[in-house]
Amino acid sequence: MNSPTLQSYIAGRWVGQQPDKLLSSALNGQPVAYTHAERLDFAESLHHARSVGLPGLLALDFQQRAARLKALAQYLMEHKEALYAISTHSGGTRADNWIDVEGGIGTLYAYASMGRRELPSSNVVHEGPAQQLGKAGAFWGTHVLVPKRGVAVHINAFNFPIWGMLEKFAPNFLAGMPAIVKPASATSYVAEAAVRLIAQSGLLPEGSLQLIVGSSGDLLDRLTETDVVTFTGSAQTAAMLRVNANLVARSVPFNAEADSLNCAILAPDITPDDAEFDLFVKEVAKEMCAKTGQKCTAIRRAIVPAHLIDAVASKLRERLSKIKVGDPAVDGVRMGALASKEQQRDVRERVAQLAAGNEVIWGERDGFAPVGEGVAEGAFFSPTLLLCRDAHANAAVHDIEAFGPVSTLMPYADLDEALALAARGRGSLVGTIVTKTPALASQAVFHAAAFHGRLHVLDAEAATESTGHGSPLPMLKHGGPGRAGGGEELGGIRAVKHYLQRCAVQGSPTMLTAITGEYQRGAKVREDAVHPFRKHFEDIEVGDSLLTHRRTVSEADIVNFGGVSGDYFYMHFDEVAAKDSQFGQRIAHGYFVLSAAAGLFVSPAPGPVLANYGLDTLRFVNPVAIGDTIQARLTCKRRIDRGNRPDQPPQGVVAWDVQVMNQRGELVASYDILTLVAKRSS
Amino acid sequence: MNSPTLQSYIAGRWVGQQPDKLLSSALNGQPVAYTHAERLDFAESLHHARSVGLPGLLALDFQQRAARLKALAQYLMEHKEALYAISTHSGGTRADNWIDVEGGIGTLYAYASMGRRELPSSNVVHEGPAQQLGKAGAFWGTHVLVPKRGVAVHINAFNFPIWGMLEKFAPNFLAGMPAIVKPASATSYVAEAAVRLIAQSGLLPEGSLQLIVGSSGDLLDRLTETDVVTFTGSAQTAAMLRVNANLVARSVPFNAEADSLNCAILAPDITPDDAEFDLFVKEVAKEMCAKTGQKCTAIRRAIVPAHLIDAVASKLRERLSKIKVGDPAVDGVRMGALASKEQQRDVRERVAQLAAGNEVIWGERDGFAPVGEGVAEGAFFSPTLLLCRDAHANAAVHDIEAFGPVSTLMPYADLDEALALAARGRGSLVGTIVTKTPALASQAVFHAAAFHGRLHVLDAEAATESTGHGSPLPMLKHGGPGRAGGGEELGGIRAVKHYLQRCAVQGSPTMLTAITGEYQRGAKVREDAVHPFRKHFEDIEVGDSLLTHRRTVSEADIVNFGGVSGDYFYMHFDEVAAKDSQFGQRIAHGYFVLSAAAGLFVSPAPGPVLANYGLDTLRFVNPVAIGDTIQARLTCKRRIDRGNRPDQPPQGVVAWDVQVMNQRGELVASYDILTLVAKRSS
Repeated sequence: MNSPTLQSYIAGRWVGQQPDKLLSSALNGQPVAYTHAERLDFAESLHHARSVGLPGLLALDFQQRAARLKALAQYLMEHKEALYAISTHSGGTRADNWIDVEGGIGTLYAYASMGRRELPSSNVVHEGPAQQLGKAGAFWGTHVLVPKRGVAVHINAFNFPIWGMLEKFAPNFLAGMPAIVKPASATSYVAEAAVRLIAQSGLLPEGSLQLIVGSSGDLLDRLTETDVVTFTGSAQTAAMLRVNANLVARSVPFNAEADSLNCAILAPDITPDDAEFDLFVKEVAKEMCAKTGQKCTAIRRAIVPAHLIDAVASKLRERLSKIKVGDPAVDGVRMGALASKEQQRDVRERVAQLAAGNEVIWGERDGFAPVGEGVAEGAFFSPTLLLCRDAHANAAVHDIEAFGPVSTLMPYADLDEALALAARGRGSLVGTIVTKTPALASQAVFHAAAFHGRLHVLDAEAATESTGHGSPLPMLKHGGPGRAGGGEELGGIRAVKHYLQRCAVQGSPTMLTAITGEYQRGAKVREDAVHPFRKHFEDIEVGDSLLTHRRTVSEADIVNFGGVSGDYFYMHFDEVAAKDSQFGQRIAHGYFVLSAAAGLFVSPAPGPVLANYGLDTLRFVNPVAIGDTIQARLTCKRRIDRGNRPDQPPQGVVAWDVQVMNQRGELVASYDILTLVAKRSS
Repeated sequence: MNSPTLQSYIAGRWVGQQPDKLLSSALNGQPVAYTHAERLDFAESLHHARSVGLPGLLALDFQQRAARLKALAQYLMEHKEALYAISTHSGGTRADNWIDVEGGIGTLYAYASMGRRELPSSNVVHEGPAQQLGKAGAFWGTHVLVPKRGVAVHINAFNFPIWGMLEKFAPNFLAGMPAIVKPASATSYVAEAAVRLIAQSGLLPEGSLQLIVGSSGDLLDRLTETDVVTFTGSAQTAAMLRVNANLVARSVPFNAEADSLNCAILAPDITPDDAEFDLFVKEVAKEMCAKTGQKCTAIRRAIVPAHLIDAVASKLRERLSKIKVGDPAVDGVRMGALASKEQQRDVRERVAQLAAGNEVIWGERDGFAPVGEGVAEGAFFSPTLLLCRDAHANAAVHDIEAFGPVSTLMPYADLDEALALAARGRGSLVGTIVTKTPALASQAVFHAAAFHGRLHVLDAEAATESTGHGSPLPMLKHGGPGRAGGGEELGGIRAVKHYLQRCAVQGSPTMLTAITGEYQRGAKVREDAVHPFRKHFEDIEVGDSLLTHRRTVSEADIVNFGGVSGDYFYMHFDEVAAKDSQFGQRIAHGYFVLSAAAGLFVSPAPGPVLANYGLDTLRFVNPVAIGDTIQARLTCKRRIDRGNRPDQPPQGVVAWDVQVMNQRGELVASYDILTLVAKRSS
């Protein structure tokens, strides 16, 4: 059977017929597919992204794009077996491919959900609060984040062709940027299959996503000021691309995530009798073998108290000896192949460099024999554990990364030394600290955090649910300083912001209200005959406002409120002590003011307001004394339309700004209340 | 009189005796000072910063460093006249130098105050909230920001030798990083004077600040992964430094702020009868002449409706004709000199390029004659206004910046065209939009924000207090995309974060509590005989907790609470409607639950808790029905020691986590309360 020629997806067309480079199965060397020989027209591709993709994306708002991401995740989940099938050629086990396939789809779900929860139903994020810049309140300043009006170019690594694409695409799509993705050739057949599914789904606006199989040619030279480039791969390639003259001249953001010499530290408080001792050994072994060690987050350096180093080495040797390597289709196989023969050569070479002067605790010589048909032509490699007794003197173990199932043990004398060794990695994606002592964790993290993108603190409690050293999660930052590339990915909505432009905005409150979509105190309000709480979601506008009737707060109110609440604090009830307090007299309960304000603006009969589910940023600005008269202003601050969900009546979120004033017009309390308001159609 | 030789401040010593380059007065060409000829030892300088500066800074916490900044600001304010005196040589008016001298000192004050308000009394910023990563709550994730443990190198521009230094130093110092500052040689005599004052003050830990007069030599080649470089100056120099091989290899963050072709747009809604018409003219003229146009934020392109272009040109010509240029010591002088003869040559050359094919509305030929003694040897330049009738065809006006009192008018047909012209600057620091229509401002900002670091919306209301187009403010981001360098400075605490390392942290709640310094639900708590509200600030620990007695909520409570508050919402009082609501029955008021919880945990007699000044993130998680029994848990979440202020009794801020549960252990309400707690000494 002829192997297919992969195609690029450019400007809405699948491009490529002529076979170029052969891509072979990591398991048995059999042909899988060819890259295509045709050169791509990146002027066309960029023009398509800018003229078709961008307007299509900006025709939707954040909430609508979040909904598309969710639908896409569902579609891919329904078709996941096709992705698992093509992924087998890349050498991993089903568990390895789960990370890529379902980890990738899970990231779409996660961003759909974070976008729904945290972003507005517009295309402007208000990063407030606004700050008053003049005494009279006529001039304020704040920040907005808007879609960057450019193209996101993602250059990805071979090890996670799906996850690596989707973990970048999800935030850039949510932000409203079209993407052009260039997967590494070695496993581009997997990325191509995923993009075919995405295109077939018809769920994304045309031009949202383009795919490059093969070379990215002059693409980077054609980018402009509003574009973004991300790169995942070796530190060397990152350094080369980062200095592209066009990117530099135009200050195009370049976000790099490079593999690094990640460490795990067994802290000095742990003895072999502690559960944490075994957890450490297990974590190191697991990280060595998962994805055949081809994870940029894998543990490359295991840093162990000197007096325990031989015990740890022996335990690890025992574990590694039991790991069956081979074709994952064979029963009991727990580790598959490297992604390609090139990788196999590369890892072998680097292991030789690392082994110089160090002990090999476990390696190829310990009877390595992968199982399965044709494995001799596959890219298998033995788990390899080295022991470096003098890690200070040996620079190689902190610098050379064998991107396979390879790790080095190294001893330390005290915590300071352990932390110094960890820092020798000169910037890592992730580190694990195994300890049972909170104060020790705190001390270690304070130091190590300056050198790491993520730190995983493992104890017996956390181990029951830990997602593990090597797993980046959508809500946590991925990417580390220095050697790890200095970039940031994921980390929740932070990642979306990498594709938005932050802009400070200054102006009058009325202007800032129009620009941010959030009511700014001092802006013109709209007061009409209808109580704001009697309007349906569609009829409420930001700035709709109600100034309530007034209420005089009497001594009886304080007494009654004390009786109902049980709160007899001296400031409210003890004339003697209250006289000596900062206010010099008895004052009303803060929660009474809050409750009485609700009494002023509530509209008792059933209406569109379905629930008051919370309250934010309550500040008691001035005391309310006996005899003071309060009045409240309620103004629509923000409204978010999250679309309609089948499981609930149609509704939207409305936040209201509340100001409670006294008879002198002084603010006494200030807060936002959060409500769910029914839509008209309900 | 011999002119002095300036000195560098390296490793705690003033270095340099041999004169090198002569620096002359911008006003009359007279010698001011020499740079020194000695080459500096940057290995020593960096070693000093790392081994002396860093530990000294980390011996203080954020709050203590904020207090040092405030003291430093006060010290400099007392000595400001010395700075004004030396600044006269640089050519500006007192008002121009105010921006540099008092703008710089004001930035110190602002960061002192923001640090005090927003940062903890430790060296770890918790960027939460933590997120639960497992079902049972044994494993959570969050983010911390810690000092980067490296050195901040600031390479500054000649136009603001004090402000330019302090606006970067304030956030880096607050973050806990030592700094090495290299001012531009032309005005290094001003920066040197400021650093002498800072050193004399004795207020900063040794090694916090070093100064380079002259060349930065091999400094960049010696930096490592934890360092940071900032640059302010031309886009060309930024592009050159950014690709330094060492910085690239080590992913050293490089933050650039370059001058750009900033615009001001007179929106299409404005007629010559509007106040905004005059505001536009005034703003353009002001920005041309302030600091003799040597501001990276100055308006270089004034974009005006085609039918108003001649009216605007004529008004501007009139204004410019009245501006007296010369030695600011002469009465009535409103614009001084450029900073140097080199600048004068450069600006003249660029004006010639810009003028090609365009009209000169006002310029040197219009009788330019600066006043004052020796001005013929000074670096004066006439305000110069050009008019480009076809700004689409003319690329130069969007690209060539004459860094002096020079601006170009250009006409547009409609708002889209105005925005397209604005974007031709390919990334700017700031733009002004003069309009009186909020919807128009909103539309314009949504587009223009992708190309700008800051947008200033000017109308008659804002004009009464506007700080102006050209003024960066500490709380607002400074820096723009593309041509403007792609960096970010200022913007409040955002700028401090540029000198902190963000690290995701995963672990058990108890570990995260120890690491972040903030109580994480699920962590071990400390319950002792003393009610937490009866402890002084010093005796309270994060995790101190109280589980209250219980209270059964009865129908009478609802009735009484309605009576006291006046809140008769149907959910609480209308059996019929409540039955049809989402809860199917009458429920207690949310604010009753809040008030009753306070009744459960309040300690009535006078004690260390001075005030409950607010509440954050209240969520009503589950309804409380008649007959339910509630109970509260109060736990110390966070404590911030802001030191003692002379104007108030010694106290600290304590935030308490409150969980209100029902008889089934379900959470019904969740929030933080904010208190001020007296210190023991009070």
